[in-house]
Amino acid sequence: MATLQNNYFLKALRREPTPYTPVWMMRQAGRYLPEYRATRKKAGDFLSLCKNPDLATEVTLQPLDRYPLLDASILFSDILTVPDAMGLGLYFAEGEGPKFERPLREEIDIQKLKIPDVAYDLKYVIDAVSQIKKALQGRVPLIGFAGSPWTLATYMVEGQGGTDFLTIKKMAYTRPDLLHHILKTTTEAVTQYLHAQIEAGVDAIMIFDSWGGALSHQGYLEFSLPYIKVILSNLKMMGNKKIPSIIFTKGGGLWLQDQAEVGAHALGLDWQTDIGMARQKVGHQVALQGNLDPAILLSKPEAVEKEVKSILDSYGQGSGHIFNLGHGITEHTPPEQVDVMLKTVREYSQQFHMK
Amino acid sequence: MATLQNNYFLKALRREPTPYTPVWMMRQAGRYLPEYRATRKKAGDFLSLCKNPDLATEVTLQPLDRYPLLDASILFSDILTVPDAMGLGLYFAEGEGPKFERPLREEIDIQKLKIPDVAYDLKYVIDAVSQIKKALQGRVPLIGFAGSPWTLATYMVEGQGGTDFLTIKKMAYTRPDLLHHILKTTTEAVTQYLHAQIEAGVDAIMIFDSWGGALSHQGYLEFSLPYIKVILSNLKMMGNKKIPSIIFTKGGGLWLQDQAEVGAHALGLDWQTDIGMARQKVGHQVALQGNLDPAILLSKPEAVEKEVKSILDSYGQGSGHIFNLGHGITEHTPPEQVDVMLKTVREYSQQFHMK
Repeated sequence: MATLQNNYFLKALRREPTPYTPVWMMRQAGRYLPEYRATRKKAGDFLSLCKNPDLATEVTLQPLDRYPLLDASILFSDILTVPDAMGLGLYFAEGEGPKFERPLREEIDIQKLKIPDVAYDLKYVIDAVSQIKKALQGRVPLIGFAGSPWTLATYMVEGQGGTDFLTIKKMAYTRPDLLHHILKTTTEAVTQYLHAQIEAGVDAIMIFDSWGGALSHQGYLEFSLPYIKVILSNLKMMGNKKIPSIIFTKGGGLWLQDQAEVGAHALGLDWQTDIGMARQKVGHQVALQGNLDPAILLSKPEAVEKEVKSILDSYGQGSGHIFNLGHGITEHTPPEQVDVMLKTVREYSQQFHMK
Repeated sequence: MATLQNNYFLKALRREPTPYTPVWMMRQAGRYLPEYRATRKKAGDFLSLCKNPDLATEVTLQPLDRYPLLDASILFSDILTVPDAMGLGLYFAEGEGPKFERPLREEIDIQKLKIPDVAYDLKYVIDAVSQIKKALQGRVPLIGFAGSPWTLATYMVEGQGGTDFLTIKKMAYTRPDLLHHILKTTTEAVTQYLHAQIEAGVDAIMIFDSWGGALSHQGYLEFSLPYIKVILSNLKMMGNKKIPSIIFTKGGGLWLQDQAEVGAHALGLDWQTDIGMARQKVGHQVALQGNLDPAILLSKPEAVEKEVKSILDSYGQGSGHIFNLGHGITEHTPPEQVDVMLKTVREYSQQFHMK
């Protein structure tokens, strides 16, 4: 493997000094980029793009070529590859979100749920990781990722991304044993999946708990966070002690103290959370990643500058901050606004990293 | 006006002693009730039901007749009656949420925005309040309500209920002057509207900030909360000092301390927030209303009992808690589950109100 030429992202995750605040963006390879849209067209559709390691490598590198100020790359893939490999039949209906052909509703199907053979069923992801690492030639670190068991289970049980989660919550409070069985099986699958990504060369991992915020505090502590903790401890036991990890519960800003306890190096923050207040609460335990509202990128350059500075000011002096959006970049973003954001982060943040 | 036979809801809002924890439900008159569906069918559609004071009175009283353990009633109406009266053309497409025929996008339309003549344009709501008060014969207090200016503005600018609010956020960060003009005008409209409801007899008011949680903390403090504060102070200046008020920002659990400062008697809590922690933070300033996840009502009776008790335990000893859901009841709720919830609140809460 080529030595990393820029390891500031990894240093910040460990709260070690860096000359400026490193930055990357959730969904940085995506529909807002014309070059991404061209590659996706070549692939046919989103899922075919995910399943083609050559094209996944191509789109992973696109934002790095366009934006030299990015300090990390992230594997181009989707959190739903895992339940797809578990046999649920992922598909994307045009103009709609992801759906499953065979959602998990019946006890008999839940009991039959199997952990996928990562080396075979998810070979295309692992191949993509190897190819991307090679193509990067050590320019910046590569982030691997997976969905949290709770978040994957919401899609598996609801059959699609939801807004009210009534089906899975009904299961959670009527047959918690069934839901816990799904969560345990998914936890094992995600663990093996992330381990394989690490073996193939990713430099850090991130667990996306996109729907953890739909739960009550008690529900979060029963159905989401403990399974994230198990994944992180199992990965450590499997010998991946040096790989830094980020966990991100969208809508979970009320529960940062709980999140800081599970063994991750960093917490992702959505834009609801004041990053300065978050640092006061948990900054002695973890690094923080975030948290510009992606909608800001649709406004004018001066507003982008102002809001970026306000987040950097709020975090304040010292290391342990990775700048990012508070959620994935939207497809309506003018690509030149990203330049404004990156330039502001790079220039304005240096004052916070002086000795 | 008939004297109130049960004023525990009002006493709890003022944190005065009551023999048990009073309870009502957001959207307690609604589609989960067969009698509501029958009346709605008679009306033709949702909007015609809102605009017919006789039928609005009928559905407001339906849950009270079915559930004698309810401690408050709430005007049957919709927060979007105000922008409708401002000329935006509210309509409900079958199977979809509310929409506006003429969303506010252009500066020229925004500058022309007018405060409605409540006595004329919203006469049907004020008539409904008078009729409901009469029909109630003092059984329980009647709650009047309105949407917060920010929440109304999201519908007015987006043209419908959204999930990403990109149009209004783009306006907020590109032309804040235009958004503030909409918010100021709407604040004046809501003030006059709530004042008219109070004059017609409501015993308490509630302001629904359903989309305040879509903002960042700074955004909330600029675009949502100050306008709620202006409404509450203006109402007081208009002579409504004795009317207790509740404000509810869905997804606003991170900002309770800010909310407690604006002069409301109580804060509504969604189910993300731990009510015991909320009480520790702001319980010396305000009463708290909430906060059962409405999805719990879809599960089994034992789970409903357990979760209701857990919320009552978490709030603990003493007055100042109004039991409610953390959001509106869903249409899929079996009506008998509401009985379980109400019975548990009434019986289990008495131990917390002993001298």
